[in-house]
Amino acid sequence: MTTVRSLKSELNEAPAILENFLSSYFQQNVERYSYGELFEPLYLDLTEFVSRRGKRIRPMLFLMAYRLFGGDRELTDSSLLKSAVSLELLHAFILMHDDVIDQSERRRGLPTFHKLTEERMGKLEGRERVGQNVAMVMGDMLFALAVETLHSTDFPAGPRNVALSRFLRYVSDTGCGEIYDILMGKRDITRVSENDIVQMYNLKTTRYTFEAPIVLGGLLAGASPDLLNDIEQITDPLGLAFQIQNDLIEFSHFDLTDRAMQTDLLEGKKTLLMRMAFDRLNDLDRSFLQLCLSAPALNDSSIIKIRELIEKSGAVAALRERMQELFAQSERALEQAPFSVAQRDGLREAIAFIRQQTQYTGTN
Amino acid sequence: MTTVRSLKSELNEAPAILENFLSSYFQQNVERYSYGELFEPLYLDLTEFVSRRGKRIRPMLFLMAYRLFGGDRELTDSSLLKSAVSLELLHAFILMHDDVIDQSERRRGLPTFHKLTEERMGKLEGRERVGQNVAMVMGDMLFALAVETLHSTDFPAGPRNVALSRFLRYVSDTGCGEIYDILMGKRDITRVSENDIVQMYNLKTTRYTFEAPIVLGGLLAGASPDLLNDIEQITDPLGLAFQIQNDLIEFSHFDLTDRAMQTDLLEGKKTLLMRMAFDRLNDLDRSFLQLCLSAPALNDSSIIKIRELIEKSGAVAALRERMQELFAQSERALEQAPFSVAQRDGLREAIAFIRQQTQYTGTN
Repeated sequence: MTTVRSLKSELNEAPAILENFLSSYFQQNVERYSYGELFEPLYLDLTEFVSRRGKRIRPMLFLMAYRLFGGDRELTDSSLLKSAVSLELLHAFILMHDDVIDQSERRRGLPTFHKLTEERMGKLEGRERVGQNVAMVMGDMLFALAVETLHSTDFPAGPRNVALSRFLRYVSDTGCGEIYDILMGKRDITRVSENDIVQMYNLKTTRYTFEAPIVLGGLLAGASPDLLNDIEQITDPLGLAFQIQNDLIEFSHFDLTDRAMQTDLLEGKKTLLMRMAFDRLNDLDRSFLQLCLSAPALNDSSIIKIRELIEKSGAVAALRERMQELFAQSERALEQAPFSVAQRDGLREAIAFIRQQTQYTGTN
Repeated sequence: MTTVRSLKSELNEAPAILENFLSSYFQQNVERYSYGELFEPLYLDLTEFVSRRGKRIRPMLFLMAYRLFGGDRELTDSSLLKSAVSLELLHAFILMHDDVIDQSERRRGLPTFHKLTEERMGKLEGRERVGQNVAMVMGDMLFALAVETLHSTDFPAGPRNVALSRFLRYVSDTGCGEIYDILMGKRDITRVSENDIVQMYNLKTTRYTFEAPIVLGGLLAGASPDLLNDIEQITDPLGLAFQIQNDLIEFSHFDLTDRAMQTDLLEGKKTLLMRMAFDRLNDLDRSFLQLCLSAPALNDSSIIKIRELIEKSGAVAALRERMQELFAQSERALEQAPFSVAQRDGLREAIAFIRQQTQYTGTN
């Protein structure tokens, strides 16, 4: 069993190895996409989009879990890296479609994929729509590549098959979370319960961000599926805690003048912060918040007012407390899980690693 | 080896068996999608959408190929049916995204998926966009189910793995064809060559409609991948011939008053018919056609004029001739393929079956 110390030293090397593999992977797959000249610039954009510096928390978490559950392949093993990267490709595909849905303009400090395509269209009439349509289909193609990347590894057939089925299941979960986000965005805040929001966060983000990497890493390391069945006891509160952390960071760094940030607040999204603020306000403030949120779009004065109301409500402090409680709940579940001491310590290390990575810019 | 006679009798039974399996399949998977109340109506819509009477030419062609290449499972074998159905699910996913791209309103005589969702939104502001976004994500989820459906069969690991990789590759090809269709739609007709259109048809439709079912059926029957490498010599001309047949039928049945038809002509698409008409017109008519097509949208008088110009050009007769030549080319390739007499006769039977199915309403 790998000790925490050696895991730590491996994890220092992992990011560079992952980045190298990721860029060479698109090079390796050039032939698969030799569809002619018209397609080449789009493939370049895709390569650039996926290669942008992200936190890579999914592949990193996968590699950590693989090691903790007894996997002994070298970090440079091509199938191990492909499995890790399949999670990053999945993530990039989800972001591409998510950005179309939200009509977001920026992602990781650069234009979103549909904006890249739109820019390539010059002054063409209808270029916005072209960009969104192309991004939808390129996302589909990236999803296909993500599946093939996991599928074409040389892990034993048994665990690999289970891993692939789980992978596809996580896509489904994420899709449902996305749909809930879309539908809830159109509902009056009084018709969106705290539970709805928690479930949406869980489906849309937690499952493929926290549960999937640990389960897939464990499965491919040869751990029994049973051992991994209860992992959601650890990851469900953990994912929600991270989501709350994300909401709080976004709120505290909020800058009205920086429209490129496109925060949930600017978009009037039904976040947990919003719902909890709503619950804590007096009737007058509550009606006002409801009115602001039901407008088709928010103007600056609405946004300033919403911000004030959230601050006044005390929801920030309540959420901070809830976040701490969720981290503790996850830790208790970890204590009770049928893992070895080394596994427990390692997972704790992994969680600390992610907390450090996500301190300021969310979980992308 | 199955004779043509017994194949024929099996094929008579196959459609009912397929329809039964398809509807029960969504029932069987209800638990996978137990995401709560908000999701239930969408799952119902998905079930209805996929279950609509289509021609099922992909699963039918798959079953025929499976039998011809020596597969001996019963027609009622669950893994055999799942493999067949995976192609229909793939098709439905492609239609869902294609309909969003084209903003189509009708599919198989009923509302497109995004229109179904839009209708569920009542008078909600922004319901069009909600419908399209939900359709995109539901398409993603259906794609995941299609892959899982093929992946969870009990065929021997070797052929099944090759089949799954090919399946994913066909998704990529189709995506690229879709993108070419989007990009070419925005180009002036002088900048879209006949070859571009032929390549687009091939990637967007032929590969997953004709090549994929035969290759997958053959692979899962245990045929050597080598034997199937040249199948595109048969399916490439065949697919193009069917596409031309489709264009010609659409043109001859064209009815200006029936806007719900949303034919390629109404959308001003760069079909082979349009390009060949363009090539055959005199300079004056050609400029006029170019002018009509470059407008952001076509009005009735443009459409009538375009129709007249196409008729005047003689492109219909030229295309009809080309279609016959392509069917003959496909037949010659079939003659030269290293197949047994029974396989050759069976494939001929299969092609005749599809020609019969697609006589009036295209290849959906």
